[in-house]
Amino acid sequence: MELKDMVGNIKPVDGSYIEIAQRRLDNLTKPRDSLGRLEEFAKRLVAIYKNEMPDMPKKAVFTFAGDHGVADEGVSAFPAEVTPQMVLNFVNGGAGINVLAGHAGADVLVVDIGVNYNFEDMKGLIRRKVVKGTGNIAKGPAMTRGQAEDCVNVGIGLAREYSGKGYMMFATGEMGIANTTPSSAIVSVVTGIEVAAVTGRGTGIDDDAFRNKVRVIEEAIELNRPDRMDGLNILSKIGGAEIGGIAGLCLGAAEQGIPVVVDGFISTAGALIAYLMEPAVSDYMFPAHNSVEVGHRAMLEHMNLRPILDLDLRLGEGTGAALAMTILDASLKVYREMATFGEAGVSEEGA
Amino acid sequence: MELKDMVGNIKPVDGSYIEIAQRRLDNLTKPRDSLGRLEEFAKRLVAIYKNEMPDMPKKAVFTFAGDHGVADEGVSAFPAEVTPQMVLNFVNGGAGINVLAGHAGADVLVVDIGVNYNFEDMKGLIRRKVVKGTGNIAKGPAMTRGQAEDCVNVGIGLAREYSGKGYMMFATGEMGIANTTPSSAIVSVVTGIEVAAVTGRGTGIDDDAFRNKVRVIEEAIELNRPDRMDGLNILSKIGGAEIGGIAGLCLGAAEQGIPVVVDGFISTAGALIAYLMEPAVSDYMFPAHNSVEVGHRAMLEHMNLRPILDLDLRLGEGTGAALAMTILDASLKVYREMATFGEAGVSEEGA
Repeated sequence: MELKDMVGNIKPVDGSYIEIAQRRLDNLTKPRDSLGRLEEFAKRLVAIYKNEMPDMPKKAVFTFAGDHGVADEGVSAFPAEVTPQMVLNFVNGGAGINVLAGHAGADVLVVDIGVNYNFEDMKGLIRRKVVKGTGNIAKGPAMTRGQAEDCVNVGIGLAREYSGKGYMMFATGEMGIANTTPSSAIVSVVTGIEVAAVTGRGTGIDDDAFRNKVRVIEEAIELNRPDRMDGLNILSKIGGAEIGGIAGLCLGAAEQGIPVVVDGFISTAGALIAYLMEPAVSDYMFPAHNSVEVGHRAMLEHMNLRPILDLDLRLGEGTGAALAMTILDASLKVYREMATFGEAGVSEEGA
Repeated sequence: MELKDMVGNIKPVDGSYIEIAQRRLDNLTKPRDSLGRLEEFAKRLVAIYKNEMPDMPKKAVFTFAGDHGVADEGVSAFPAEVTPQMVLNFVNGGAGINVLAGHAGADVLVVDIGVNYNFEDMKGLIRRKVVKGTGNIAKGPAMTRGQAEDCVNVGIGLAREYSGKGYMMFATGEMGIANTTPSSAIVSVVTGIEVAAVTGRGTGIDDDAFRNKVRVIEEAIELNRPDRMDGLNILSKIGGAEIGGIAGLCLGAAEQGIPVVVDGFISTAGALIAYLMEPAVSDYMFPAHNSVEVGHRAMLEHMNLRPILDLDLRLGEGTGAALAMTILDASLKVYREMATFGEAGVSEEGA
């Protein structure tokens, strides 16, 4: 199937399920709406699943890894060799995402979609390399349009494959030294907000490096002239492989009727690319948290999404998304397990 | 031991443990501080436990139930009979707190400290009744100073007893029809903010009932003249039995070196009473969430505490605290389980 045909099949969630879920929630032993956003989440999950009483979902965090030619411009506090080192840390279970996915009862699926390193075949690493690092966007495009489409198709393919394996909740995550740089470029292009206002400190750069980062992003946009209405064009000109994989995972989740918890700044840039391709995809997205990265909020507002957590996180990997999955699980448990007024013999409001 | 002697033994946490924990966190495979508030929580837990590598804690939510004479004034959307009905719902496992404590891996301990109903002896109900409902604060004091002290001692006693049983993390919760009314009265008296600005809709009253609620609280303060510097005086004049139990649990937790996750509006009123008795108790408190109730924020600011979650909750029972416990558990897991740079062979920042 062509990507544009696949995207055309994504439909908004069915509002009638929201009403069905609301009726059940209003009959549980609590004042109406008193569980606030937990009720909002449960209703949307019921609508996504088209199931009045969904099972507790099997969960996976997809951590896409890719390198960025723009790391040569000194935009990150860490050297590029850290990307493959961290991939091995994920595979060996020692990273933040391993701990927090374990806490959430989710599996971590590590995907090499664009790392500038030749990994051996190993258990726990999904090898779907499209590029060996992107081009330096300060000097030219990140990749070709065909490569960008391949990255998105990797994400779609994984969504279909793991849906087939019984997973019913996905989260996005990423690793890629310098990847806040293309992400800030994407926010600025899509929202029209100036680069300096949507660029942050990434993993922790100083004032001089920050000014340099803003200049590099401005030059990359000026040089590559991405088309702000065309997600694939933006992805190819100033994006990244892992950002494309995340966009594809979001599209694939929507196609499969599976909720996707979108992690922080870089993941949301991927979600925004998917949203440009089909706005209905946002019905399936749960934004995990409000990142410390300043451009994050602008993207969420653009898609009219409100984050679940606000814990000053800026690690990426899918860590915030894994934590947010525990809240979504809680919302489904409340919906499934609480007693009704009738069952518990409790008097209703105004009685 | 006299209450004032016990309170005098509560000490601020030992800052040297904060530094010990910081050193470990900075050596884990992540950019410094990139796990934001999770790192803040882990550091404070290490300091509370005075243990460089704490075990994962056994957890308990204490849901204190009490009735309020002021319910006669029409300040709640639910009838007073709902208090004992909900106590039975807690004991039978059907309420929101049962579901969310189960999600957090915490036990629910239901405490009758002031319900206007004679419960049979039953498994799962801790019977520590001090009053059979408080007096109507619009007509006189809620209880005597001796009864208020007894309520606080119930909380302290439970903290000691369950500390002895190996529990290492407590959460507060409550049930009591009309108990947002004394809570708003407490906020107004302690912070000096006018009643209308710290009074909310409780479980869901309309405009007329809201105006009546504000008037009732103003009259209760005018009539009882609580001393804003004296926690026990405030508790006896315009408080409630479950609010006193929560104050005691907070004091007892601090005495025992156990963190206490403080739920929403009513629980925070209890925490505020404890804080008036000994400000150092706030070192042991983790405020669970930012309640919809408008007076909640004023109390948190008074104690210089920042909530963990913001999910528009207003159910009480300890539901927000149970959810917040899952975040604290996550912070400890990160601290305990992540690989260090050396272990994982990952290059450090600026390398």
